[in-house]
Amino acid sequence: MKLQTPYLMFLGDAPDQLAAKTAQGVVDWRPDICIGQLKLENCKADLGLADLSLADAAEKGAKTLIVGVANRGGIISDAWAQTIIDAIERGFDIASGLHGRLADTPAIAAAAKKHGCALYDVRHPTESFHVAVGAKRSGKRLLPVGTDCSVGKMYTALAIEKEMSGRGLKATFRATGQTGIFIAGQGVSVDAVVADFISGATEAIAPANDPDHWDIIEGQGSLFHASYAGVTMGLIHGAQPDALVLCHEPTRTHMRGLPDFPLPDLGLCMEANLMAAKLTNPDARFVGIAINTKGLDETAACEMLDDVAAKYGLPTVDPVRSGVAAIVDNL
Amino acid sequence: MKLQTPYLMFLGDAPDQLAAKTAQGVVDWRPDICIGQLKLENCKADLGLADLSLADAAEKGAKTLIVGVANRGGIISDAWAQTIIDAIERGFDIASGLHGRLADTPAIAAAAKKHGCALYDVRHPTESFHVAVGAKRSGKRLLPVGTDCSVGKMYTALAIEKEMSGRGLKATFRATGQTGIFIAGQGVSVDAVVADFISGATEAIAPANDPDHWDIIEGQGSLFHASYAGVTMGLIHGAQPDALVLCHEPTRTHMRGLPDFPLPDLGLCMEANLMAAKLTNPDARFVGIAINTKGLDETAACEMLDDVAAKYGLPTVDPVRSGVAAIVDNL
Repeated sequence: MKLQTPYLMFLGDAPDQLAAKTAQGVVDWRPDICIGQLKLENCKADLGLADLSLADAAEKGAKTLIVGVANRGGIISDAWAQTIIDAIERGFDIASGLHGRLADTPAIAAAAKKHGCALYDVRHPTESFHVAVGAKRSGKRLLPVGTDCSVGKMYTALAIEKEMSGRGLKATFRATGQTGIFIAGQGVSVDAVVADFISGATEAIAPANDPDHWDIIEGQGSLFHASYAGVTMGLIHGAQPDALVLCHEPTRTHMRGLPDFPLPDLGLCMEANLMAAKLTNPDARFVGIAINTKGLDETAACEMLDDVAAKYGLPTVDPVRSGVAAIVDNL
Repeated sequence: MKLQTPYLMFLGDAPDQLAAKTAQGVVDWRPDICIGQLKLENCKADLGLADLSLADAAEKGAKTLIVGVANRGGIISDAWAQTIIDAIERGFDIASGLHGRLADTPAIAAAAKKHGCALYDVRHPTESFHVAVGAKRSGKRLLPVGTDCSVGKMYTALAIEKEMSGRGLKATFRATGQTGIFIAGQGVSVDAVVADFISGATEAIAPANDPDHWDIIEGQGSLFHASYAGVTMGLIHGAQPDALVLCHEPTRTHMRGLPDFPLPDLGLCMEANLMAAKLTNPDARFVGIAINTKGLDETAACEMLDDVAAKYGLPTVDPVRSGVAAIVDNL
């Protein structure tokens, strides 16, 4: 899978800005490949892009319509299907991050077949993977891990890739979730592969490379999340990370979606992740801590970053406030 | 899913006894539900059961034909398809442990539809699962975990269930793999569910129960196996085990299928499993160690069991040589 760019971002009838979070993430990181947005009547989200019709977007060279909007139930609504079919008839490929499959709407499947357009359901991997072999491969790999889900692992990975590329280092972001896949144009939703192949899929998306090349692999979940830790464990083993970055959100009062589960202590969390990582890479080490301090004011944020840095002896940054240069310095 | 019993065991043209390992496991543990075997010409395996034709088996009450044989490629061979179709025409349900799906052979799918028979591909869960909630549920649970794959976790679980039931304790074996599912008549191949649902599927197969009831859950893989540890991690979290049993095979020179990976130290292995288990059950503890000493002579076996018991202060048994009574005593 390699999504054709540039993209036209389809927002459907998104009821609010949050429903377009996926599309917004793509625009934030790859404005160069997002040439416009397409909204239906009643759409309450806006990406700050030019509003383009399918015809205008096609003329400007758009190749793929990205369904970057969430709805209740995660299925292609009737309200969206006609626009998607119209896009197919103009030669667009379609890529969706919804749980429901594009091809499950028969009219969409038929149109794609007729016009030879590709349908990409990025939450539903279609590749076959090998079982992980665990063999050391050339090249270097960095993996952000989290105290919880949704604490900034993708943002941290992308910021590190950007910082490294800006310094002329060889770095490639490797996507493991839907937004990341739209950003990279490729990748695998590792939480959606068959359980036996989590590590194997991770090995496949970050293959052998030049000795001085870094894969910056998008992290998923948390070893301390009672719903998803299996995914995280398999991802760590398949990634064989040389470098780990701990991601944390300090205002979180409990694990996401699990009110009875407190967040783990940062030191304990690093210890558990390091133990897992050393199984497939005995040289794994933490190179930094990334804290999402959005919920803190400037003073409290700086104080927290300083305290954590002092306590664990690691570069500690907020990728948004302070950038990730200190972590890249430590690679 | 609840397989109808009794079973007729189909061995196809198994080239040797090992190819019928799954069927043998079912016969070993549930001879009462295996009323006969059906072999094709050239079959080199034998379960020690009566050879029955489909007609004879149907007359004796057989309800399900178990495809309990492996072949290269894991698909329904042409040589087997006709027998399976004949069975369907006589009203048998079909249950297969192969990777290839029964319904992928169109003639089998058509026959099943025509005759209203069920096709069970036990390696391919068809249920929808919830994401694990991690909430404490009533009842007790025991989970064997391993230093490696294929070290006797299913055998240990079944032996413990049998020992407990024999003492009048409430215990139910919960299957998480193909042979276990045939034995229990139900269960879920947790290594075949979508990665996000490993823990959720485990919660589903071992639901809330009487406070004095024990689910004895079949273990899978090993936290120290670089290919499959994600499955093991999710299984541990979903199981919320009150009691863990470490399973080990002492003659193994490396992790199964991974020549470069040594087996973990038993103490380290217990520590890692206990850390994982305590996330969803802070009261988790090891209650025993089960060592498969088949590769050792009687003297060496006894010596090893004594040494391990002394070193870790836990009842240490070979479920085959010495039974699991000492572990059940410690529950």
